[in-house]
Amino acid sequence: MDEASAEVQARVRASFESQGLMTHLGARLAHIGPGRVHIGLTSRPEVTQQHGYFHAGASSAIADSAGGYAALTVFPEGSSVLTVEYKINLLAPAEGDHLEAVGTVIRSGRTLTVCNLEVFAIQGTSRSHVATGQQTLIQIEARAER
Amino acid sequence: MDEASAEVQARVRASFESQGLMTHLGARLAHIGPGRVHIGLTSRPEVTQQHGYFHAGASSAIADSAGGYAALTVFPEGSSVLTVEYKINLLAPAEGDHLEAVGTVIRSGRTLTVCNLEVFAIQGTSRSHVATGQQTLIQIEARAER
Amino acid sequence: MDEASAEVQARVRASFESQGLMTHLGARLAHIGPGRVHIGLTSRPEVTQQHGYFHAGASSAIADSAGGYAALTVFPEGSSVLTVEYKINLLAPAEGDHLEAVGTVIRSGRTLTVCNLEVFAIQGTSRSHVATGQQTLIQIEARAER
Amino acid sequence: MDEASAEVQARVRASFESQGLMTHLGARLAHIGPGRVHIGLTSRPEVTQQHGYFHAGASSAIADSAGGYAALTVFPEGSSVLTVEYKINLLAPAEGDHLEAVGTVIRSGRTLTVCNLEVFAIQGTSRSHVATGQQTLIQIEARAER
Repeated sequence: MDEASAEVQARVRASFESQGLMTHLGARLAHIGPGRVHIGLTSRPEVTQQHGYFHAGASSAIADSAGGYAALTVFPEGSSVLTVEYKINLLAPAEGDHLEAVGTVIRSGRTLTVCNLEVFAIQGTSRSHVATGQQTLIQIEARAER
Repeated sequence: MDEASAEVQARVRASFESQGLMTHLGARLAHIGPGRVHIGLTSRPEVTQQHGYFHAGASSAIADSAGGYAALTVFPEGSSVLTVEYKINLLAPAEGDHLEAVGTVIRSGRTLTVCNLEVFAIQGTSRSHVATGQQTLIQIEARAER
Repeated sequence: MDEASAEVQARVRASFESQGLMTHLGARLAHIGPGRVHIGLTSRPEVTQQHGYFHAGASSAIADSAGGYAALTVFPEGSSVLTVEYKINLLAPAEGDHLEAVGTVIRSGRTLTVCNLEVFAIQGTSRSHVATGQQTLIQIEARAER
Repeated sequence: MDEASAEVQARVRASFESQGLMTHLGARLAHIGPGRVHIGLTSRPEVTQQHGYFHAGASSAIADSAGGYAALTVFPEGSSVLTVEYKINLLAPAEGDHLEAVGTVIRSGRTLTVCNLEVFAIQGTSRSHVATGQQTLIQIEARAER
C-alpha cells in the first residue's frame, strides 16, 4: 500500500496523538496512505459491550477517525477537518483479537469530502467484515477550526 | 419525566454495567423512562478530540447506547437488542461540563425498532444541541444474542 | 402554522414549478412556512410499488424536496440549495389517499443546514407516520448553482 | 457480468413491471446478476430538477429499487423484500444522457440484508459517479408482504 508523504504522515500523527479518546481507547494508527487511513484497536475489557465483543461505540469511534484522517491526507497544509455526519451498519458481532478500521476518500471537493468506512475484526488469520459506513466531512481553515 | 418499571430499570442497569466501554468512558445512566433513556458523560481529557471538545466517537457511543436501551425498555422480558445501523449529524462543537444523550423510540415493531438520538452539551445553565441521529435496532431472543 | 414572507413563498414556488419531476409525480406545495415546507402527493397508479402502496422512491422524492425547500426559506435571497445527503427510514407501508412530506430545519449554519424529514399517509381522517429522515444541505450562490 | 438464473430474472422482472413508479419514470432493468442489479433511466424533462439535471428523487428511486432487487436475487423463492432504510450522498450534479444505478449485496443474513448503492451519469463515453449510498432491507414471506 502507498504511504502518504512524510509531511502528511507527521500532520496526521500529531493530530491523532492529541486526541485523548484515541489514547484512552488504546487505538493506534496502522497505515497512513494518500486518501486512506487504517486504525487498529486491540481487544480488552475496556472496549467491550455486555457480551464481551467490541462495543459498537468503539468500532464507530475508530471508523469515524479513520475517515477523518483519510480526508486530512488529501487536504492542503494548514487546513483541518470536521465530521459533518456519518452512517454505519453493524454487519456482525465484532469478535477478535483486534479491530481494523479503514477510511477511504471516495470524493473530495473544495468544501466537502465523502469517505467510505469499513471495520474488520481479526482473529488469528481470519478477518471478518463487521461494519460498513459512509461519512461526510468538511474542510476548514486550521485557525478557524473548532 | 415518567420512570420505567422497576423490572425494566433493573434490566437496563444490569446490561449497562456489564459494558466495559461505558464504564471506561465514565458514562452513566441518567434516566430510564418507557421508550426513553438518557446517558450522561462528564468532560475529562480521556473523552476529547484534538481541540479539547468531546470527541465525536464519545458522543456517538453514548447516543448509540441511549437508543439501544430506549428500545430495550419497550421489549418483552427475555429479549435483547442489537443496533442494526445508525446515522448521526454533528451539529456543533461538543463543548461543556458534560454531555447528555437522549434516545427515544419512534416506532417499535415485532422485529425492528427505530429511535431518535439527540446529544446536548451542558455548560452551567446553558444547554446546546450538538448532535442529532436516527437508529435502527433489532429485537432478538436473549439466548440467541450476540 | 406561520407562513413564510411573500418573497420567500414566490422563490420556493418558482423553483418547485421548474422541477419536471415534481410535476410529473403530481406533487404540490401544501405549505411554505419559515424553516418548514409541506409537500402533498395524491395516490394514483403512477406513484406506486408492486402492491399498490406509494413507492418508497416517491415518498423519498417529496421528503427530499420538502427538506430542500425548508432550507431555502431560511437562506438569503440570491442563494440556492443542494442536498448533500439524506437518510430515510421507511416505518410502515405508505397506504392512503395522499402523502404529506414535512421538511423542517433543525440547524442552519453559514454553509450547511440540517433538516428533519417526516412523511405521513392520510386516509380520510386517519394519519399514519410512514417515514422519518434526516438530511444535510449546502447553501450555494444562485449563479454558481449546479 | 454474471447473469442470475432464469427463475430469479423472471421473478425480478415481474415485480419491477408491476411498479407503477418505475414505468412512470421510464426506468428499465439493465442487468440482473446474483446479488447485483442495474437500473437505467434516460434523461427527459419529466425526471429533472430546476436546472435540467436529473432530480435527486429520480436518482434515489432507481438506486433504492436496484438495491431492493439485488437483495431479492439472493432470497429464497416465495420471499419478498422491503427497504428498511437507506442513506445516499449526492456527489455531483447528475447530468448526462442516462443514469445507471447499481445495487450490490454486501451482506445477506436470515432477516436483514445490506446493499451498497452507486449511481453513475453517462454522457457519450464519459461515466461520472454521481451518488453513493447504503441500504438495509428485510426479507419477508411473500404472503405477508406489505
